[in-house]
Formats: sequence, structure tokens, C-alpha cells
Amino acid sequence: MNITTVGLDADDTLWHNETIFRLTHERFVDLLTDHDNALIEARLAEVERRNLRLYGYGVKGFTLSMLETAMELCDGAPPPRAIREILAAGREMLAHPVETLPGVDAALAALSERYRLVLITKGDLMDQERKLAASGLGDLFAAVEIVSEKDRGTYERVFGRHGTGPGEAVMAGNSMKSDVLPALEAGAFAVHIPYAITWAHELADAPRDHARFGALESISDLPEWVARFA
Amino acid sequence: MNITTVGLDADDTLWHNETIFRLTHERFVDLLTDHDNALIEARLAEVERRNLRLYGYGVKGFTLSMLETAMELCDGAPPPRAIREILAAGREMLAHPVETLPGVDAALAALSERYRLVLITKGDLMDQERKLAASGLGDLFAAVEIVSEKDRGTYERVFGRHGTGPGEAVMAGNSMKSDVLPALEAGAFAVHIPYAITWAHELADAPRDHARFGALESISDLPEWVARFA
Repeated sequence: MNITTVGLDADDTLWHNETIFRLTHERFVDLLTDHDNALIEARLAEVERRNLRLYGYGVKGFTLSMLETAMELCDGAPPPRAIREILAAGREMLAHPVETLPGVDAALAALSERYRLVLITKGDLMDQERKLAASGLGDLFAAVEIVSEKDRGTYERVFGRHGTGPGEAVMAGNSMKSDVLPALEAGAFAVHIPYAITWAHELADAPRDHARFGALESISDLPEWVARFA
Repeated sequence: MNITTVGLDADDTLWHNETIFRLTHERFVDLLTDHDNALIEARLAEVERRNLRLYGYGVKGFTLSMLETAMELCDGAPPPRAIREILAAGREMLAHPVETLPGVDAALAALSERYRLVLITKGDLMDQERKLAASGLGDLFAAVEIVSEKDRGTYERVFGRHGTGPGEAVMAGNSMKSDVLPALEAGAFAVHIPYAITWAHELADAPRDHARFGALESISDLPEWVARFA
């Protein structure tokens, strides 16, 4: 067995992201005080799901979905303050400082000495490039792929292009649905490293008894896990 | 001299795009009837320019910029109908049918027989992928690169990755600023094929007396132009 390439998810694997979304959710709920919190959350989740096909992933689509939800909940006439605050929240998310997760710097430095590192992430193009630059991790990656969807074909294509194919690659990330299951389907190794909270649209069950699957509590354990197969 | 690779811009080079933005501009101006048309246009252009660094290119950022402009022009309280119409206009742009420009199908079919074709475009990831799929041109391209910015480094990287370097590549597109000048800087050939209208942020002067620069009226003339160097 040989491992040449390690793919890494970005948001909530290398740096905090969902926490920032949750803070904005709370701010959004506070804006619409006339409505029940659970109702607001449910409606926002529904609007986001409906819009995923059009907007894709990322802050800009989320901002537009918050605006649409506010319109729907307020019968087409939300308070002007709510519109202003939602637009401001979106801009602030896009300018939010990047805080890498514990152990990331050391783990990536160790991995980059032996394997080709590829960043594989969804989201807004410019926002993800900004975060990578701000993280200071950019130089450790041989390639960066910002993709509209993470499915089996994505991993076949990316590990084919930047490595020696999925059979000799490991994918690591916090989303069972996007990082683990489709990478395993493509024939890669896959490691789940959970984040404190998971976006509802990324939830999925773990694979059972899969020889190429691993679950780690921290990215600090990733170099050792990969070395067992390499 | 040898040409192995032809890069093509997408919006307003392969299919109509700016026309759709202009229609939305007109609709936007009509929504804010209390204001002077020239003032609305100037303010929108200013907000777009200010937001480019945060939002990047594409329909989602444009929609958010229209909303911000409406907020500013209406002292923070635009009519609810305006908000609703702007959100709807953004969604409609993202679902707009793709209409390829005259001569595109034949020109790309001819080029793809002799060269590796690479689509190089800015904009929203999911929207550009949708348009390429809807255009029916996807199979003619060896690679697709949706990028956050088109500068010299972009062309060096893309033609290095998908071809034999910029020195043996031609870039063709409707934007002097994004498609022609940085491609020439990277050492590639570059061809300007103007569209009926150009977005203000993409205007630039043509290069003077550059041996690797060409200007064509129609993409139908591109295969012959490339063949002169190949």
C-alpha cells in the first residue's frame, strides 16, 4: 500500500466556520422578535435547502437566504433594520478573522513533508481563497480545489489530477456526508475528524466496517493514522 | 511555433451574459422611481466596485450590491416591493436560459479537433457550471477553471496545469482587461473578440503592436487565426 496524497477539507477542519454561521443565526433570530425561534430556524433551513441548487455553498448564498426568509416571515415587509443587519452580517462573515483549529499547523507541517497536500473545499471562491491566505497555511498545499459539490466524481477528478489517483489518497474532514462517504466511494481512504457542531445539511451516518475509514478526535492524530498505510 | 492549448472565456464570449445584467439594471432603475437614473447607475457601480474584494464576481454578489444600493438611496428604508423584486431578479438571472453566441458551436468543434480547450472564467462556481452544462459545450473542453481573478499568475498556472505552458497557448475572450492583457503578460497569445456591451469594470485599452495579439469580430474567425501560428 502506498499513500502519495492527502486531501483536506477547509471549513471546520482547518479553521472555525460553523461557529461563525451559528452566531449569525442567533443574530438573525434576534432580529425577528415577533416570531418563534424554532419557526425561524426551521424556515431558514427550508429556504437554504431550496436555494442550494441555485446559490451553492457559502456566505453570499446564506445572506440571500436570510433575506428571503425574513421576507417570508414578515409577509413581504420586514423592518428595514432587519435588512440592514442581515446585509451587514454577511459582510462581516466575509471579513471575519481566520482562526485555525488546535493542532492544525503542526499536523499539516508533518504531513507536507511526506505527502502532496490538496485543499478540497466548497463555498465562495474569493472567500475561501481569502481564508487560506489569512490562515498562513497556503504554502503547505500543492494544490487548492474549490468545488461546487463534493461527490464521488469530484474526488476521482481531483486525486487524479493532483496525485496518483484516489487509491493512493486520503481525504480528511469534518463532514461525513461530503468528506468521508464520497471519498470512500471513489476508492480513497477517508478520515472523519468531527467539529463541535455540524450544519444540518452535512449530517450522515458513519460507514460500518470499512477498511479504509478512520475516525479521529483531533487532526493531531492524522499523520500517525496515514503513516500506518503509507 | 507550436500551439497546443486554447483558453476560452465564457460569459459574453460563448454565451450572452452582460445583456441579462443590463436588463436587470433597467429593472432595478425602474424600482427606484424617486431617484435620477444616472445617479442610481453611478451609485450601483460604486457599491459593486467597493464589494468586489469581498463578493468577487457573479450574480450573487451583484444581487447583494443591488440591495445595498437600494438601502443607501432610500435612506435605509426601501419599499418592500423593491427588496422582493431584487431578490427575484437575482434568482431569475441564476435560472436564465443559456443562449450561445453565433458561430460558437462550429468554432469550438473545429478547435477541439486540433487543440486542448480550456474554459477559464470568473463568476459563481455553481452558476458557471450550470451554464456550461446547459450550453451543451461541456464535452468539447478538456478542463474547466472557474477562478476568482484573471491575472498573469492565473494564466501561468492554468496553462501550465492543463497544457504545455502559456508560450504554446492562445487565450480568447471579450474582455481586454481580463482575457487579453494578463494572458499576453503571461507569455500567451491573446485574441480579443468584443461583445456588444462591456461591463464598466472590464474596460481597458488594446495593446499596441504586440506580435501575439489579435482582434477578431467573430469567434468564427478564431480557428483560422490560431492555425496561422500552430
